[in-house]
Amino acid sequence: MTAIIEPRVLKGFRDFLPSSEITRIKLIEKIEASFRSFGFVPIDTPALEYAEILLGKGGGETEKQIYRFTDNGGRDVALRFDLTVPFARFTALHQNEIAFPFKRYHIGKVWRGENTQRGRYREFTQCDFDIIGSDSTAADFEILLLIRNTLLGLGADVRIHLNHRGLFNLFLKRLNLTEKSQEILQTVDKKNKVVQEETFNSLASLAGEDNAKKILHFTGGNSGEETFEQCLQRITELTGGASPESERLSMLRRYMTDSGCADIFVLDPSITRGLDYYTGVVFETFLTKLPDIGSICSGGRYDNLAGLYSKSKISGVGSSIGLDRMIAALENLGALPSSAVYAKAAICCNRQEHFGLYQTLALKFREADIPCEVFLEETDKQVKQFVLAEKKGIAALIIPGENPLTDPITIRDIGKRQNTEGLSFTQACKVIGEIR
Amino acid sequence: MTAIIEPRVLKGFRDFLPSSEITRIKLIEKIEASFRSFGFVPIDTPALEYAEILLGKGGGETEKQIYRFTDNGGRDVALRFDLTVPFARFTALHQNEIAFPFKRYHIGKVWRGENTQRGRYREFTQCDFDIIGSDSTAADFEILLLIRNTLLGLGADVRIHLNHRGLFNLFLKRLNLTEKSQEILQTVDKKNKVVQEETFNSLASLAGEDNAKKILHFTGGNSGEETFEQCLQRITELTGGASPESERLSMLRRYMTDSGCADIFVLDPSITRGLDYYTGVVFETFLTKLPDIGSICSGGRYDNLAGLYSKSKISGVGSSIGLDRMIAALENLGALPSSAVYAKAAICCNRQEHFGLYQTLALKFREADIPCEVFLEETDKQVKQFVLAEKKGIAALIIPGENPLTDPITIRDIGKRQNTEGLSFTQACKVIGEIR
Repeated sequence: MTAIIEPRVLKGFRDFLPSSEITRIKLIEKIEASFRSFGFVPIDTPALEYAEILLGKGGGETEKQIYRFTDNGGRDVALRFDLTVPFARFTALHQNEIAFPFKRYHIGKVWRGENTQRGRYREFTQCDFDIIGSDSTAADFEILLLIRNTLLGLGADVRIHLNHRGLFNLFLKRLNLTEKSQEILQTVDKKNKVVQEETFNSLASLAGEDNAKKILHFTGGNSGEETFEQCLQRITELTGGASPESERLSMLRRYMTDSGCADIFVLDPSITRGLDYYTGVVFETFLTKLPDIGSICSGGRYDNLAGLYSKSKISGVGSSIGLDRMIAALENLGALPSSAVYAKAAICCNRQEHFGLYQTLALKFREADIPCEVFLEETDKQVKQFVLAEKKGIAALIIPGENPLTDPITIRDIGKRQNTEGLSFTQACKVIGEIR
Repeated sequence: MTAIIEPRVLKGFRDFLPSSEITRIKLIEKIEASFRSFGFVPIDTPALEYAEILLGKGGGETEKQIYRFTDNGGRDVALRFDLTVPFARFTALHQNEIAFPFKRYHIGKVWRGENTQRGRYREFTQCDFDIIGSDSTAADFEILLLIRNTLLGLGADVRIHLNHRGLFNLFLKRLNLTEKSQEILQTVDKKNKVVQEETFNSLASLAGEDNAKKILHFTGGNSGEETFEQCLQRITELTGGASPESERLSMLRRYMTDSGCADIFVLDPSITRGLDYYTGVVFETFLTKLPDIGSICSGGRYDNLAGLYSKSKISGVGSSIGLDRMIAALENLGALPSSAVYAKAAICCNRQEHFGLYQTLALKFREADIPCEVFLEETDKQVKQFVLAEKKGIAALIIPGENPLTDPITIRDIGKRQNTEGLSFTQACKVIGEIR
């Protein structure tokens, strides 16, 4: 008699029962369909990599959170903590096998030993999409449009706030604050998460009170008091007139208008994204009905993706959807895909020895595009088959006659508790098709 | 100037470039479609679990191969090395949330620090499917039928060899060899991998020469000299006449005949499956055109799935497809899904400033079910757009007129290097639809 090992999962890790797994899969399928329709192609990379590669960027936060260990061969390895670093390594390694511009997506799990008290998971799914090998404004716009279309496809209306990092840097240069630009960017990045006074005080201590006022004036105007065009004009002036950066925003605006979706975009000079990785256009996406949960899809343009692993300078623009946050948001909006099981119908098992015939009948229904399971066990009362169907979430029960392949069929609508009797196979398919 | 970190992946791990990733995804989609059409539902479990749980079964081989380490919280953890053990733990943990009989599938990555010299990978994908909570012969048959239909759906004809462990045990009992049954089972399991003499010698040293002859006689007959029925009759007699085990094989045979697929099944008393985990019907699947690569899908019935983690005795029957072996086999048969990119068409970028209008046009094609990317950058010569399309594997290039939304469209068949000019949008869709 062996002792029982307590069945449990690690803190921050989750099992997915069919009801939640089906929803997740349907959501991912919708996201993939959108990516694919834009001509983005999938890649995959290992879960485990050399720690040296994943930690290349350094970064204390990452180092603390990463799952890192020595494998049986003595290698220093770690689980990937995002899909960006593996993509950089992938690009450096395969640059000669890729046709640029390269539009790729990557949906996969990542692992971080984060503090789970903040409602975070230690294993979660990211959906990354990037265009690399193109400096064009067209690439910036395509990523923005793809965000819009993907989220619309999920049933979520969005507002995308964007800015140009270079324009902000030009402004700081005019204030002789270039050296402190990274700290100022990060302070502004946190602007909406703290009280206004705190931002002012932080900026004042970095740049003096006068400059703090100027910076807050520059980054303002995003709450609806200015149109995209007015804001662009204002910040263009504040940066010393037209520049390649302001021209890029103008062209972006033209693309937005030409594709009929200008109204969802907000030029918001307070968007900076903290990471020093970004160098061009940066953006954050908010749900119009749930703006308070923060950005659900952020990203931007970078000019040196794979610099740690290659001498080639590969620029690009990309973004990422966190699946768990998206699921929580869609649940809140009542827009989650249904968790309905795949089998719409099941065949009632009236006589155990007929199981082979029931499977033959099931095959006919499957060929008629009706996913169909077969109940495995005969029961003393038919009502037990109804109960099982209900428990399994199956909409229609197919009740065959004594000769399952030739006798008329009865269809039971499990939800309505109604039978329709005496049906031919074709009629049965039709009745099942009408059941919701 | 930072030093370059060499971009590389760990031995036994792989990147998947779009061409191979698309093939893998299409293959998985076909497998999933088959599972779903039978009413099987998906689950998922964490990549990382308590080592105690994954190693519950003990087993020296497993312990050597598993990726095991201490996490930042001091927990003894490991990466899953198969999907069976996590499923046992899952079932023990969630038995009150599951509607039995439970038909589930699980497709996911697993990790083993195996010797890569044997052409094995350290990260690979498994596709498991099981029915638990049913002792019925119907469940055994459904798993066998699902294997057949799934592999047929992949374009592979199969022959499934099966046996009943219990019948073999009855036979050994009559020879007073019950105590050595596990060693004998394992020797027979290796039968087809070694020369006949070696098997005989091993059996003789375990059970004596006389019994060795009897065992080889019992396990013979699988090479076509006997029909299923003849073999069943012979081994029934050798086990002392009809038993619940022989009755089960009879019923299974009836199901096979009733569902019109009797000819693909071989009763093969030499199939034993080495693991002591199996207690009932066991089976191996061979490709009729590539029998020598061995079983591509094996499994069987077990009577105590979650015994290590729960006092509930949950029986079931299940099987597993190794995706990499399947891909190698299908490649060999020329039956791999194509690696064609998702975007069948691309819009030629004639004028950079029209990119917003091109995206609007692309949207129309996507709505007409033509996945369509938009080329990002204008080129000095149009032929460069043709070259890019060819490089990316895109079949049709959409060349808009000066006014992209109203002027007639030209479609270029990239393969045939042919233009069709002066098309309306509807005509353009039709022309694209006809391009292979």
